Amino acid sequence: MINIRIMKLGQGVEWALHACHLLAALPPGSSLSSGQLAEFFALPAPYLSKHLQALSRAGITASIPGPQGGYRLARPAGEISLLAVVEAVDGSAPAFRCTEIRQRGPASLPPGRYRHPCAIASVMARAEAAWRRELEAVTVADIMATVGRRAPAAAVEARAWLARAAGIGRAAGDAERQASSAPSPRHD
Amino acid sequence: MINIRIMKLGQGVEWALHACHLLAALPPGSSLSSGQLAEFFALPAPYLSKHLQALSRAGITASIPGPQGGYRLARPAGEISLLAVVEAVDGSAPAFRCTEIRQRGPASLPPGRYRHPCAIASVMARAEAAWRRELEAVTVADIMATVGRRAPAAAVEARAWLARAAGIGRAAGDAERQASSAPSPRHD
Repeated sequence: MINIRIMKLGQGVEWALHACHLLAALPPGSSLSSGQLAEFFALPAPYLSKHLQALSRAGITASIPGPQGGYRLARPAGEISLLAVVEAVDGSAPAFRCTEIRQRGPASLPPGRYRHPCAIASVMARAEAAWRRELEAVTVADIMATVGRRAPAAAVEARAWLARAAGIGRAAGDAERQASSAPSPRHD
Repeated sequence: MINIRIMKLGQGVEWALHACHLLAALPPGSSLSSGQLAEFFALPAPYLSKHLQALSRAGITASIPGPQGGYRLARPAGEISLLAVVEAVDGSAPAFRCTEIRQRGPASLPPGRYRHPCAIASVMARAEAAWRRELEAVTVADIMATVGRRAPAAAVEARAWLARAAGIGRAAGDAERQASSAPSPRHD
């Protein structure tokens, strides 16, 4: 019999990390709709959208409202750690929850007698701190640099796609602005 | 809105770690039934039993069959890492599962062109390795030493309870052995 792993990160974490990596390569001043982000990764838009909203709530992405709006990073990619993205989507509660079972049962001491944290919980917390430290040390900008080095062709393709996607958005926006600034027939 | 943490360890991990810590303090040659272990921690016996079986399958505990049987550690406490206990109960699959979304969508390259692992998955794997390293570095014997130092009264209480529990088992076993070795009336 094989045990099913209980401790696992949801798919939203993978999606959010990749979405931030893509947004970091956006031309300045542009944004991507959740539909465009979903298209880029061939992901189901409604589910992705939920995670993009979590990123916005955490101040990692900014959402620009309106038909030409969309998402962009809210701060420089070098200031967004992978930990921030993971915790935006998955929360920051510890994976190991100590329920103090040492204080139960017939051989337990009166509650006030446990002056130190549970030794087992302490080690579990130390392991999680090590996990967080690794994710805190790497930023979205570091990922961009690694991908640029390891998979330059993929980075080029992504930038070309982004230029088209952002261009389409901008062109449509421009057309709309032109239309609204054009003299309209007077009805008054 | 607060995100619910998806990545969490089940309660069985806490129970199994504490159960191993208690079994490490057993007098030599004795064992504890799952009912006795459940009593010590005031835990529901059927659920605890499931996790004790997982520990046995992983070779961490040995189960001694029969009415006076029970569980004991299968090897010295100094040779059982916390990681071994956690993985026995929770499995060893990675918490972050990379589904290679970089290879999807309109801007992806042909599959053969991705020669390096995904940069995001690499960092996530490095973080999990750091987590595992911390848990691998600490043994059940280390936990015993820490509890002995931090909560000596709790360690004394636990040993006293264990001596009684193991004594009851041994006394019953002795009585049974005496009964079976006593000359029985001849029927032939």
